[in-house]
Amino acid sequence: MSQDSQFHLNAFLMGVGHHEAAWRHPRTEAHRVLDVAHFQELGRIAERGKLDSVFFADGLAVGPRIKHNTQAIFEPVTLLSAIAVATEHVGLIATASTSYSDPYTLARKFTSLDHISSGRAGWNIVTSAGADEAANFGVDGIPAHSGRYERAEEFVDVTLALWDSWEDGAVVLDPETGVFADPGKVHTIDHDGPRFRIKGPLNSPRSAQGRPLLVQAGSSESGKEFAARYAEAVFTAQRTLEQGQEFYRDLKARVVKHGRNAGDLKVLPGIVPFIADTEEEAKALEQSFTDLISPEYSLRQLSTMLGVDLTKHSLDAPLPPLPPLDEIQGNKSRYQLVKDLAADGSLTVRQLIGLLGGGRGHRTFAGTPEQVADELQTWFEQGAADGFNIMPPYLPGGLDDFVDRVVPILQQRGLFRTEYTATTLRGHYGLADVDNRFAGAVDEASA
Amino acid sequence: MSQDSQFHLNAFLMGVGHHEAAWRHPRTEAHRVLDVAHFQELGRIAERGKLDSVFFADGLAVGPRIKHNTQAIFEPVTLLSAIAVATEHVGLIATASTSYSDPYTLARKFTSLDHISSGRAGWNIVTSAGADEAANFGVDGIPAHSGRYERAEEFVDVTLALWDSWEDGAVVLDPETGVFADPGKVHTIDHDGPRFRIKGPLNSPRSAQGRPLLVQAGSSESGKEFAARYAEAVFTAQRTLEQGQEFYRDLKARVVKHGRNAGDLKVLPGIVPFIADTEEEAKALEQSFTDLISPEYSLRQLSTMLGVDLTKHSLDAPLPPLPPLDEIQGNKSRYQLVKDLAADGSLTVRQLIGLLGGGRGHRTFAGTPEQVADELQTWFEQGAADGFNIMPPYLPGGLDDFVDRVVPILQQRGLFRTEYTATTLRGHYGLADVDNRFAGAVDEASA
Repeated sequence: MSQDSQFHLNAFLMGVGHHEAAWRHPRTEAHRVLDVAHFQELGRIAERGKLDSVFFADGLAVGPRIKHNTQAIFEPVTLLSAIAVATEHVGLIATASTSYSDPYTLARKFTSLDHISSGRAGWNIVTSAGADEAANFGVDGIPAHSGRYERAEEFVDVTLALWDSWEDGAVVLDPETGVFADPGKVHTIDHDGPRFRIKGPLNSPRSAQGRPLLVQAGSSESGKEFAARYAEAVFTAQRTLEQGQEFYRDLKARVVKHGRNAGDLKVLPGIVPFIADTEEEAKALEQSFTDLISPEYSLRQLSTMLGVDLTKHSLDAPLPPLPPLDEIQGNKSRYQLVKDLAADGSLTVRQLIGLLGGGRGHRTFAGTPEQVADELQTWFEQGAADGFNIMPPYLPGGLDDFVDRVVPILQQRGLFRTEYTATTLRGHYGLADVDNRFAGAVDEASA
Repeated sequence: MSQDSQFHLNAFLMGVGHHEAAWRHPRTEAHRVLDVAHFQELGRIAERGKLDSVFFADGLAVGPRIKHNTQAIFEPVTLLSAIAVATEHVGLIATASTSYSDPYTLARKFTSLDHISSGRAGWNIVTSAGADEAANFGVDGIPAHSGRYERAEEFVDVTLALWDSWEDGAVVLDPETGVFADPGKVHTIDHDGPRFRIKGPLNSPRSAQGRPLLVQAGSSESGKEFAARYAEAVFTAQRTLEQGQEFYRDLKARVVKHGRNAGDLKVLPGIVPFIADTEEEAKALEQSFTDLISPEYSLRQLSTMLGVDLTKHSLDAPLPPLPPLDEIQGNKSRYQLVKDLAADGSLTVRQLIGLLGGGRGHRTFAGTPEQVADELQTWFEQGAADGFNIMPPYLPGGLDDFVDRVVPILQQRGLFRTEYTATTLRGHYGLADVDNRFAGAVDEASA
């Protein structure tokens, strides 16, 4: 059982839906992938359901999938800024890479979103595994897994220091005396590390929630250690209750090993829910999406994921043998998931594509609102989740259905809030206030 | 006389006003520097006045001015995203540095704002002169002037290529065939230069105005050459009509020398207008702001600007001798302006501070709405301006007064639009559509 008495719910938003063929389905309007008002509406729907947060993934290249896949049009932080001013409560989590940005720039950008939203910003920390991304930043080949995480650790350390560089109360703003800020509460950080030298202070005061929420989603060994050390929420792809329980136990143990409380990190497995009045209708709905998958697109996507060219492979034959995990420099958790699925040799490539098309490896679930609620309750009560990363297969309808049909059941069962009780994203997730390393310190340089 | 038959007007927005003591004055509410709704309101006021655009400056350090100066709280692009969804017509110009960002990241960020605003984004290109900014990005000392501009040129070249990497019409979005994008209209750029290697394409389609408007404000030799080559609008500080005419002639000649039409670049001198029913009241209003200037703050600011420590200098003595221009690695145009003002040795430091406090070197003007309109008309008709960079000394009141009292006079005189006639920022400035270098090209790599 989770430490918390109630769920946390994040809505993972992607274009007009997570299902890769969502934009081809009559339940969506494809052109809305280009429309900021669509995403503002999604934020308001999530808020109507009292969800903790909405979240956008991101990547720094178009990759080989451009013909058949809707691409991310908007940069997540600019998009969330537009959503922030259309909502009042819901948290706003954006992905940004530690491999291809500067800590000062990233710290400022997220603090700006945190000010615009009055303390509702979150940062999903990624390290950008792809060679296609590297090539847009002057880096040849696929950056080594270990180097990416070493950089990420120093990056986050210095970003946290920048977010502490203004103490609470540093902004005096006294028109009488003409004092804008108390220089004794604004600190240089004087970071001098292997990859970054940054003096500080940040050029923006501390935000209403101290600093943005830290989110992470890597499931490799390095990824889990990184999450255990820094993350406050983890998005994860777990396909069975047993796998979910194992991941949950493992990650919480690592959190404690790092001197934190187990409850300081919330584990949120992903689920792609197809919701209908009956289980049969829900399964038929899911099938109507699967029927629209383009094999050409899916083979390219799977080839990229596995680092093995499948584009000439028969759709109706089993997967060929895959290289060992330690030769993979890309996304190890997705790779392992496909390897597990294909382990007994019975799945054809076509079947695998269908399974992955719903949520790129995340668990899909088709059922009635009660069945979805039951499933979530089981995972929560059986120690596999502190909450869930809801990945609507189509938007906005799939989010409407979850908010209007599943959330009320969870609320009736006492598993989910009926009103927002906190004002910040960190508050929604039940996290403690953030200490400031400089509180009370005297800093001669900025006096 | 300008080539255009009507003015262009930009509102340069800064906190609760351009006057450095604005936040201490009873006409402002200081806490609104922290309030995104304040800035959304300013965008709506500018739009009520049919202004071409609003603009935010930016810097990447707090500098030594923190005690007495309100600091920029918001990062400009995230702030403009929030303003974009609260407005429909007005252009949205943000400052970003070529010295401390990556072209791919910057191109994406501005394209995202351009999509969010349906083609109203502009980029004010700066090269970040300060040592305090350098120290936040691992660079020691003040970066050399020439190196900054060399980087800026390659940066803009590659950013323009990224903005061309999706042709118009590349997004097919056909649910029937399952084709999202036409790969033949999405191109790698394969840039391999001295400072950047970038493969492309950009991870966002071409925007409604082709690409963001390019704005620049440097007045050094390198700055003017850079503007003549790339900029479509230039913000400039000119204190007299004669200086304005000379700058205008010089810059337009440079534009033509670079093979462009003189009208392809709009020259917008800055003006800080104090507006009241009578000239006496306007001058008294200006004085009431000057009286609130903190000498401690101003001496630090002036010392930073000049690279000479004045903090121990008497306020009532003339400026000490200043080093020659070619020893200055920082903002050369501001430096030259102060040197010109102090040339005859009669100005005391206190007087200089008063002059600079209104608009940091930009021209201040106190008068009736008619006098302000006359002054603008004269500069426009006498060949010193294609329009103006309006820098309200206090906000929102100073912008309200300009929009509600000066703009109608300009409209009556036929000098300014009475309705928006274009839908994009480039359209407001009367600029031609942007060609795409890849239009019709065949690109094997992305086919």
